[in-house]
Amino acid sequence: MHPPQWIAAWVLLLHGCATGWPLQGASARTSVRDCSVDPPYLPPTATNTTARLAALRGTMRAHSVHAYIVPSTDAHMSEYIAERDSRLGWLTGFTGSAGTVVVTQDKAALWTDSRYWTQAERQLDCNWELQRTPWIESIGLWILEAVPAEGNISLDPFLFSIDAWNSYSQALHGSGRTLLPIETNLVDQVWGDQRPPPASGEIYSLPAAFTGSSWQEKVAGIRQQMKQHIQRPTAVLLSGLEETAWLFNLRGDDIPYNPVFYSYTLLTNSSISLFVDKRRLAAAARQSLQASCPGPLCVELWEYGQARAQLQYYAQGNVTIWLGTEYTTYGLYSVIPQEKLLEDSYSPIMLAKAVKNAKEQEMLRAAHVRDAVAVIQYLLWLEKMVPQGQVDEFSGAQYIDALRQAQEHSHGPSFQSISASGLNAALAHYSPSNQSSRKLSVGEMYLSDTGGQYLDGTTDITRTVYWGVPTPLQKEAYTRVLMGNIDLSRLIFPPNTAGRVVESFARRALWDVGLNYGHGTGHGIGNFLSVHEWPVGFQSNNVPLTAGMFTSIEPGYYRDGEFGIRIEDVALVVEAQTEHQTGEKPFLTFEVVSLVPYDRNLIDLSLLSPEQIRYLNAYYETIRARVGPELLRQQLEEAYRWLQRSTEPFPLGSAATTVAAATTTLGMLPLASLLSVLLTRLQA
Amino acid sequence: MHPPQWIAAWVLLLHGCATGWPLQGASARTSVRDCSVDPPYLPPTATNTTARLAALRGTMRAHSVHAYIVPSTDAHMSEYIAERDSRLGWLTGFTGSAGTVVVTQDKAALWTDSRYWTQAERQLDCNWELQRTPWIESIGLWILEAVPAEGNISLDPFLFSIDAWNSYSQALHGSGRTLLPIETNLVDQVWGDQRPPPASGEIYSLPAAFTGSSWQEKVAGIRQQMKQHIQRPTAVLLSGLEETAWLFNLRGDDIPYNPVFYSYTLLTNSSISLFVDKRRLAAAARQSLQASCPGPLCVELWEYGQARAQLQYYAQGNVTIWLGTEYTTYGLYSVIPQEKLLEDSYSPIMLAKAVKNAKEQEMLRAAHVRDAVAVIQYLLWLEKMVPQGQVDEFSGAQYIDALRQAQEHSHGPSFQSISASGLNAALAHYSPSNQSSRKLSVGEMYLSDTGGQYLDGTTDITRTVYWGVPTPLQKEAYTRVLMGNIDLSRLIFPPNTAGRVVESFARRALWDVGLNYGHGTGHGIGNFLSVHEWPVGFQSNNVPLTAGMFTSIEPGYYRDGEFGIRIEDVALVVEAQTEHQTGEKPFLTFEVVSLVPYDRNLIDLSLLSPEQIRYLNAYYETIRARVGPELLRQQLEEAYRWLQRSTEPFPLGSAATTVAAATTTLGMLPLASLLSVLLTRLQA
Repeated sequence: MHPPQWIAAWVLLLHGCATGWPLQGASARTSVRDCSVDPPYLPPTATNTTARLAALRGTMRAHSVHAYIVPSTDAHMSEYIAERDSRLGWLTGFTGSAGTVVVTQDKAALWTDSRYWTQAERQLDCNWELQRTPWIESIGLWILEAVPAEGNISLDPFLFSIDAWNSYSQALHGSGRTLLPIETNLVDQVWGDQRPPPASGEIYSLPAAFTGSSWQEKVAGIRQQMKQHIQRPTAVLLSGLEETAWLFNLRGDDIPYNPVFYSYTLLTNSSISLFVDKRRLAAAARQSLQASCPGPLCVELWEYGQARAQLQYYAQGNVTIWLGTEYTTYGLYSVIPQEKLLEDSYSPIMLAKAVKNAKEQEMLRAAHVRDAVAVIQYLLWLEKMVPQGQVDEFSGAQYIDALRQAQEHSHGPSFQSISASGLNAALAHYSPSNQSSRKLSVGEMYLSDTGGQYLDGTTDITRTVYWGVPTPLQKEAYTRVLMGNIDLSRLIFPPNTAGRVVESFARRALWDVGLNYGHGTGHGIGNFLSVHEWPVGFQSNNVPLTAGMFTSIEPGYYRDGEFGIRIEDVALVVEAQTEHQTGEKPFLTFEVVSLVPYDRNLIDLSLLSPEQIRYLNAYYETIRARVGPELLRQQLEEAYRWLQRSTEPFPLGSAATTVAAATTTLGMLPLASLLSVLLTRLQA
Repeated sequence: MHPPQWIAAWVLLLHGCATGWPLQGASARTSVRDCSVDPPYLPPTATNTTARLAALRGTMRAHSVHAYIVPSTDAHMSEYIAERDSRLGWLTGFTGSAGTVVVTQDKAALWTDSRYWTQAERQLDCNWELQRTPWIESIGLWILEAVPAEGNISLDPFLFSIDAWNSYSQALHGSGRTLLPIETNLVDQVWGDQRPPPASGEIYSLPAAFTGSSWQEKVAGIRQQMKQHIQRPTAVLLSGLEETAWLFNLRGDDIPYNPVFYSYTLLTNSSISLFVDKRRLAAAARQSLQASCPGPLCVELWEYGQARAQLQYYAQGNVTIWLGTEYTTYGLYSVIPQEKLLEDSYSPIMLAKAVKNAKEQEMLRAAHVRDAVAVIQYLLWLEKMVPQGQVDEFSGAQYIDALRQAQEHSHGPSFQSISASGLNAALAHYSPSNQSSRKLSVGEMYLSDTGGQYLDGTTDITRTVYWGVPTPLQKEAYTRVLMGNIDLSRLIFPPNTAGRVVESFARRALWDVGLNYGHGTGHGIGNFLSVHEWPVGFQSNNVPLTAGMFTSIEPGYYRDGEFGIRIEDVALVVEAQTEHQTGEKPFLTFEVVSLVPYDRNLIDLSLLSPEQIRYLNAYYETIRARVGPELLRQQLEEAYRWLQRSTEPFPLGSAATTVAAATTTLGMLPLASLLSVLLTRLQA
């Protein structure tokens, strides 16, 4: 949801990429374009964009536009988008998940971050400059050079957040150039009937068994918050797709992996307007929404395209409209007079959705038990098949997807499975494709980052495994990543603590020896909603951690050209038991709900503290208690035995011995010398 | 420097208070005002403000002002201010360091944070409302109620930061009321000749032996940065008092404890303008500044009051002016056209000043050795005198001040000494006064937070001691505060890490058992400059930690009505030695330069890990090596013996034993059982 800034390396989330770019196959020299030769060399992966660009430039001239800016998101600032919204992808051929394009009459440039530079050089033709500084200030400077004073710089105001609009505005301020929103999207005009059609699948109600509360209860809760707010908002604008889906307990399939549908909602203190393709609403869904009409709990249905006009009309009254600035577009924001706005980073819907109630928590726990069954089956299968040379990254990903699909309430994967062997895993966001897929081998580390959509919850788990003998560095790095996962998972912290001030606990064991990882440490997750659910997590724009929130915890370590490690669990924020209490509310900690053991072959027990080992053993006991019975119920005896083997408690002695060993190196060895004295006497 | 926001409890720095308010003496009932009785009850500490308020209201009418806002800072956003700038204090009688006042024709209100509520009730008379929500939104709502539409709300634009101006402007936006800057300060008009005169002391050059580099070198470095900046600024505006003092290696005594003087500087790529009371410049200082006149290294001298006009004149050209928005006032900012501004939170001078060069580092280290001598003498003296009942908080503070004064290069304390016994130490910012001072006793914990100004460096150290037998809670809390201090001090972290993401390491040992503290964890410090030197530290608006920065590390624990603990050291950010390296630059860690041992009587060794004990022993070795010889050089043999006693290495055995003990409690006891088997066999 957030474009890369200069802090990109810290904040980027994982699994945001559509296609894998393995470091094998075609040689580096022929796999990327070379525009310096005549004629230019283009790899087969490049797209010829000459005609598209010419058509766009024609439209730009017709609108007196000197530069046109195209982003990679949709009108809801979605992280994953539908093919129909992939305007940047169609125009450029570049399929990375993050980028910005600017086209003038004689230039065309793409800005993207370092994850995608090689991919861009493989997909762009020579019509395009690749720019490696993807922040708006830098794009602004490029525009100032490319566009004459008095020129018009245009964009589709529904595809830019308020912040992005302000930044472009600031970058061009005082330059004589005009930033001009045009509501007709110029790329869509050119794309024409080749553009994929709008989604047409049914929008359906979640069965009551899978909802945490009725939509009427949710509406009442939000209205209560409006009433109690000091600025007395009269309405909340819902422009994030998850917001409307969550509020009404509705789901759709407009976007891959995310069960949401195109919509806006305007929830006022006396009415509810849902903007959506009405024909797609299932009969039961429509019935549920309109059972109380007319009245304050009647949902009035409007066409999706009417949202802006209706909002503008409503904003003429004596009203105050509450919205989340992080994901509301300038196109909607700009129709509301400044003095009628109540701006927060996130709307109260986003915050209510983030804190799961008891039933939602139970559902997410239950989904993770079935999800663990699938992952355990997969790890067992790999153990048997990899030595036979029968598995590659792609077939592995297909197999885990199938195992999940077989679990109750499954609705497919929650994102494109990451299945990466050896050096491919060093690309944190790599996914294999049918065309290019590395064979798994007992001599390489393997990283699997996958998740499922179930009616009761969304899952996301990463395990890294190695069937052969790891090198000392691999074992040390894996162990330190695990120590980081444990240290953050077992942390006790005060209520109202922001994730960003505790995420370093997941890094410290790596930092101790000069290692680190370049991505975020976690993200919220939904009940059959998004796998990346804002605003929960450990990044600077996340809200304070609160009991009832779920977040992933996923430290890693990546060694270019060699291997990659990530250990990811989903955890619930719960109240902690502490000896003392400060303040009125109890302190918090995490309960890990992902229930799959780690690879014993990669753990160097001598690095772990007694507290870490105790924690690990307690976690393994929980796995046995929760997943064991489910494996038996599903008659998966072999997997059950594998689980028992894999969750044997670790001896605490190793840690104690380590202390003694450390003691020895320091030259102060009371316990070690006591032992040695005793042994000597025995021998005597 | 930063007004309290809703996160006040986290960000407030220590020792910001002018007067102590011990919880003894007058009873709670008679020590605060009671405006509900007739006539109102006022304690002797209250000031009669009726005449002052009437005079101010008269001036307001003359200017058609309906509400006048008065802050607690000066025209440089200084943290400590001169008596002459204490407009809020004079008008209200309230002497706390943070507050805002609004006066209308029939109302007068003071906003301050929770640290000062009791103090305000003791100092205000019944002309004043005390408001407990000191954020601008709340002040704005009060103003909207108190001032009719069409009314004028005024303030002195030189006393408000850009951010504060914008916030007031936003709060009144669209309300019909006008926010009107008036350059004549209305309080000063009323204060008249009772207002303390401007500072008149000499402004002098630091001897070359005490400067890190010449002012010409510093100017060249800043001009280099201007040249390399992508936006090509033509000038930097220095409006923080430390900025000008640092740049020119000049010092003055305009503000207590801070060796700075009232000034602004406009440094352009071809000229240097210093705005200051010229007559106060020492001859040598003037000579140093004007040796290269005319030319780009000639400092042109202007009167202090000409700064705004000259800036406005300069801003008419084809220029770009670089400034720090965190501490530049709206009065200066508003004369620069928007498109000629280059805004950063902190100017390049602030950032250059924060990173000490090798010589500055050596000087700060040396100052801390002499400072340790004074503190060690004080701790030894307390050990002997307190059992005799001879010391109270105030006389203690006087004694440590005198000990520092006796050290070479001393220029007095760097802030008002905090000397707090028993329950008084639970007020984190308490300082004793001559009128009210608690006697120190072997039965109470004692907290001493003091610092010195030396020509080569500024120091700040807190030690908490107890001469009797501590309660288990006192000992546990002290030990956990110490563990936090150690854990942050020994942390290894990547370059470019922000303090806010690592400060939790100073809290974790407390968090583990449900304890915490409600203030920040550290702040930058200068070379004979401010004791709180922005922008270094662990708060959200601090810049990333860089080798060469000095910061305090100061976790604490406070128990209302009982006791307070704080352990504060100053540490230098240095490069770390790590087994591996990630990225091009080495990782960083801290070198603690405060060199005074902790109170062994309060340490529960069984809570410390072997790593913590090893760290502590190594630190004590450093103390012995650096301070021991200095004590002998100063012929302080008794103090030398005390130091040797107090820095005896701690046995590592206790920690190892703890592991074994912990092992036992968990029911998995390989090492313990091995021992027991061996012992049994021996007995057999």
